[in-house]
Order: sequence, then C-alpha cells, then structure tokens
Amino acid sequence: MSLLDQERVKLWALQKVIGPELKRFDETYDALVRGETPLIDEICTHVKQGKSKRFRPTLLLLSAKHDGRVDDAAITAAACVEMIHTATLLHDDFIDEALTRRGLPSVNHHWGPSTALIMGDYLYSKALASLIEAEQNEALRLLANTTVLMSQAEMLQIETKYDLGVDMDMYLRIIYRKTASLIESACRIGAGFNPAMRELAPAFGEFGGKTGFVFQITDDIFDYLGDERRLGKPTGQDWEEGRITLPLIAALANAPDERSAALLDGARDLAPEDRGAFWPEIKAFVMDHGGVDAARELARGYGEEAKQALAPVARGVQKDLLAVSVEYVLKRLN
Amino acid sequence: MSLLDQERVKLWALQKVIGPELKRFDETYDALVRGETPLIDEICTHVKQGKSKRFRPTLLLLSAKHDGRVDDAAITAAACVEMIHTATLLHDDFIDEALTRRGLPSVNHHWGPSTALIMGDYLYSKALASLIEAEQNEALRLLANTTVLMSQAEMLQIETKYDLGVDMDMYLRIIYRKTASLIESACRIGAGFNPAMRELAPAFGEFGGKTGFVFQITDDIFDYLGDERRLGKPTGQDWEEGRITLPLIAALANAPDERSAALLDGARDLAPEDRGAFWPEIKAFVMDHGGVDAARELARGYGEEAKQALAPVARGVQKDLLAVSVEYVLKRLN
Repeated sequence: MSLLDQERVKLWALQKVIGPELKRFDETYDALVRGETPLIDEICTHVKQGKSKRFRPTLLLLSAKHDGRVDDAAITAAACVEMIHTATLLHDDFIDEALTRRGLPSVNHHWGPSTALIMGDYLYSKALASLIEAEQNEALRLLANTTVLMSQAEMLQIETKYDLGVDMDMYLRIIYRKTASLIESACRIGAGFNPAMRELAPAFGEFGGKTGFVFQITDDIFDYLGDERRLGKPTGQDWEEGRITLPLIAALANAPDERSAALLDGARDLAPEDRGAFWPEIKAFVMDHGGVDAARELARGYGEEAKQALAPVARGVQKDLLAVSVEYVLKRLN
Repeated sequence: MSLLDQERVKLWALQKVIGPELKRFDETYDALVRGETPLIDEICTHVKQGKSKRFRPTLLLLSAKHDGRVDDAAITAAACVEMIHTATLLHDDFIDEALTRRGLPSVNHHWGPSTALIMGDYLYSKALASLIEAEQNEALRLLANTTVLMSQAEMLQIETKYDLGVDMDMYLRIIYRKTASLIESACRIGAGFNPAMRELAPAFGEFGGKTGFVFQITDDIFDYLGDERRLGKPTGQDWEEGRITLPLIAALANAPDERSAALLDGARDLAPEDRGAFWPEIKAFVMDHGGVDAARELARGYGEEAKQALAPVARGVQKDLLAVSVEYVLKRLN
C-alpha cells in the first residue's frame, strides 16, 4: 500500500522519513537564532514551545533528500526559511492584535507590540545574514524576493481591508505573495541542493507554489467551517477583521444578482464593531451559495496542478512523498 | 581658505560637491522604492516630502567619488542605505509613538501602526533584494549584518528601558549597533567603489563608525540642551521614554556618591507617567555634574579618532571633505 492510499495521511508520516534531518534542522535553527541579548533568547524559547508544524522546512528537506542524505547547506536554508516564516507570524500577530499563537500567548500580547516588531525584524535580518554568511546565493535571492512579496501582500491586505469588491484576481494575488511564494521558494531551494533534481528546481518551485495556494485556501475555508486544530479559535475572524476571502468571493459570484446585492447592501457600511454581529448572515450566505464548495474545488484543482508540476520528476519515493504532502494539506479539510 | 577653516560648516557645502550624484541618488531611490501597490507609493511620496538630510548617502558618495566620477553601483548602494535608514525610522516612530517626523505626521500616526510596520518591512526587504539583483555582494554582506545589529540594538533598548544601571559600556554597545554601524557600512561601501581607495575601505569604515558615535552622542546631548533643528521637539524625551543616555551616565559617574545615590533614590521607582515631572531634577543634576560637558568631550574625542582613521588616506579633497563632515556633526553642538 502506497502512502497515498493511507486513509488518513498525517504530517508525521511524512516527517518520520526525514526524522534525522528535522533534528539537525532544530539544532541549526536554535544555533542561528541565538541573539546576543537575553530578551531575544527568552522569546526564542517561548516561540519554540509553540511547536511549529515545520511544514516549510519539511518540504524543503523532502525536496533536498537524495540517496538518504541531506546536505548541511540545505539544513541551514531550511532554518532560514523557518526564521522568515516565524518573523511573518510575529508581525502578523502584531497587525491582527492576536492574543494567542499556537496555544500560547502571542509575543505581541505577552511582551508588547514593540518587542514583537523588533523580534520580527531580528529574525528577518538574521535569516538573510545567515544565508549570506553561508554563501547561499540562490536561496538568498529567492528568499529576499519572497520577503518583498510578503510585505507587498500585507500592504494589499491593508489596502483592501473591508473592501467587498475584492475579486478572485486580487485574492489570488494576495495569497500568492502572502503564503504560496515562501513555500514555492522552500521547495525550489531544496531541489537545488539535491544533486539528482537540481535541473528540475523550477518544477519543484511550481509544486511548492501550488501547494501554497492549497494551504492558504484551506486555511480560509477553516475560517468558515471551524477546525479543532485551530485551538478554539472562533470562526469568522477573517470577516470580522475585514479580510474578504475566497468562500465569500465565490458565493457572491455564484448567487443570483439580487441576493448578492442584498447582502452587499447590508454589509457595505458596517462599522468595524458591528461586523461580528453580521457574521451569521455572511456565513449563511456563503453556505447557501456554495462558497465553501467552490473554494474546496479550487483547492483541489491547485492540488492536482501541484502534483502535475512534478510530472518531469521520475517516479520514486520523493515524488510520492511530495504528493502525500499536498494530500495532507487537502485532507485537513475532511 | 580650506573648507575646514570656514566658520560655519554646513552640510550643504559638502553636498554641493556631490550635487549631480545626489540627483542621481534621488532618482534611483524613487525608482527602487516604487512598490506595486498604491499605498506603498503614497507613503513613499509622503516620506519624501519630509526631506531627509541624506547624511548617510552623502558620506557614501563622498567616499566613492574618484576623478570626478561616481559609479552607478555606488548610487544604487547609497539608495539601499537610505532605504534601510528610512525603514528604521518608520519602526522607531512606532516604538516611540512619535506623532511627527521631520515636521510631518509620522506614518505611524497618520496611517496607523500596522502600515508603519509593513512599510518598514517593505523597505528593509526591498533594499536587500535590490542589492542582490545588482550583485553587490560586499554591500549586501555589510548591510545585512548591520540590520541584524540594529534590531539587536532595539532589543537592548527595550531590555534596558528605565534601567538606571545602564553604564558606559552598554550605552556604547547600543549606539554602535543603532547608529554607528550603518554609517560605518555606508563609508566602507563607498570606498569599495572608489578605484583609488578600495584597499583602504576598512579605514573608511572606521571613519564612518567613529563619525556615527559622534552623531548619536550629539543627538543625545540635544535631548538635554534642545536644538532648533528638532522642530519644536521638547527636551527630556529620552528620559521620559526610559532611555538612559550619556549625559546622565557621565553625570552619575562624576557626581559625589551621596548626590548620585540621592538622585537614584528619587528616580528609581518612578511610574512612567511621573517621569516627565521628574525631568527638571534630572536635567539640573546632569548640568550640575558636568554630564553634558563630558558627553561633548567624548564626542570630540570620537571626532578626532574619525579623522585619525583616515591617516592612511593621501591628503586631498576627499580627505578634507570627510573631515568636514565630522566637523559638521560636531558643530551641530554649537
């Protein structure tokens, strides 16, 4: 029975395959983030307790593994990818005024916004400086561009906050920059360290980018459906905070014009503090007009495209494992 | 009459010498920061109206100029230095809750903290990505390390906020990372583009670092003495916001033990909201015990060291101009 056939695909099944590499990753990450100031180290320890899923490093390491080995340089690159990811979470929690992250108090909430801001700056700059020191020019180039895209995405989210006119194009533009681009870079960088796959690094990148779309779309669906992994986080947060996501965009496109117009009339001039009360109406509208189903379908489509991106890669364990990781992201919906 | 002899040395006298280069700098800066989102461009336009003194680019371009010419690559590097500087100002204004910057509303105040945070992230990442695209490996290495140091300095400032035990060592450690390191990098990078000075780039770096110390110490003195260039900013801001700077550190070291102990007793457990009312006592203590004089003396000493760092550089216009720029910083005190 192939891994793909397993009824419930879990991330740990994937991560078992790269257990020793993830251990090396953890050690490298800890060594790189050590910050020469007590507060930086204290916050690193706290963040670590939050147990990252290490999804991006997992994909990077899976892409890099060849003949049972992963280069030290790939481990460093994986640590830098995770540092950048952590930096975005710290800054996101600042922007969203999140009280918790991964079941623990957010850095923003516990140490204050200035500390969260500086800690994010530190992790961003340390990640890029570490890649320079390691002379990883290609990883550096990809990740520096990704950090530009991610900051542009944050700005687009601010520009389109509360904007009911956000359409599919804008939505995809935002989530590519916000989420997919880092996963794309992770896979592409990983393959670059794999002697057998170096030439196919762009295909791995495309795989990662499509997987990133699946990842973000499923996250946005969770905000409608709820999910036990969200540690008690209520639904409707995106709506309340003014992020218009795919389920609503799709429902507005599917619904008869007069129904959409009626919803928009009710939603248009809501004060921020009244958005929460309006959430049941939004959710009912999205459910009634197939918004979640359409989002699911799009996610599945990207999942297929992700797997197809690996067509040039020879059949084998690595290809299977990467396909499994897309399935893992999709199965989060079940 | 040499420039050094002029009674009032002004930055514009320096900048006249590199007028065409500063014009190219402005154009390159504008082209690089253009952000693909309307809000990024809007904020860039606003920040530009605040008229930066362009002190760091000026030093970089002066260091780079040879035989009447400055390489395009040096212009790009100068723009990236200024982008990083601007990013730190945006994040600083958030941390300090500043209402204004260069006489205009701060980005933090006008567009809100999230936007200031993202705009800073954008400028940081865009600066590094631009250097990578331009294949400026040395500038990239220096500036990436500098951004790490600057974030560490911010963290040290948070760790030592309100801490009356901050001593000279800690103070110098903070201001090196916060201010001197970027000016050091600017000069070092500039010399690296100068065919006649490439070998002496470390000396230019040392010059810049020492000049940076002068710059920050004089800034910290202004917080005691006031200065019309601060556009109406009141004195005592550092004290009120919990930053213990050189004049107070020096006064505490100079004063008889019992006087220092008495001041510390009064200051130790002040609530943040009571610090403003205590400012006259701090200021009087600093004046009575020569804190400002000692700080001035240290600044002058660093100014001398800056000029001495250029000893290996042959006599000539460039050496004179750089000496003038230290004098400019010192003369701000008069």
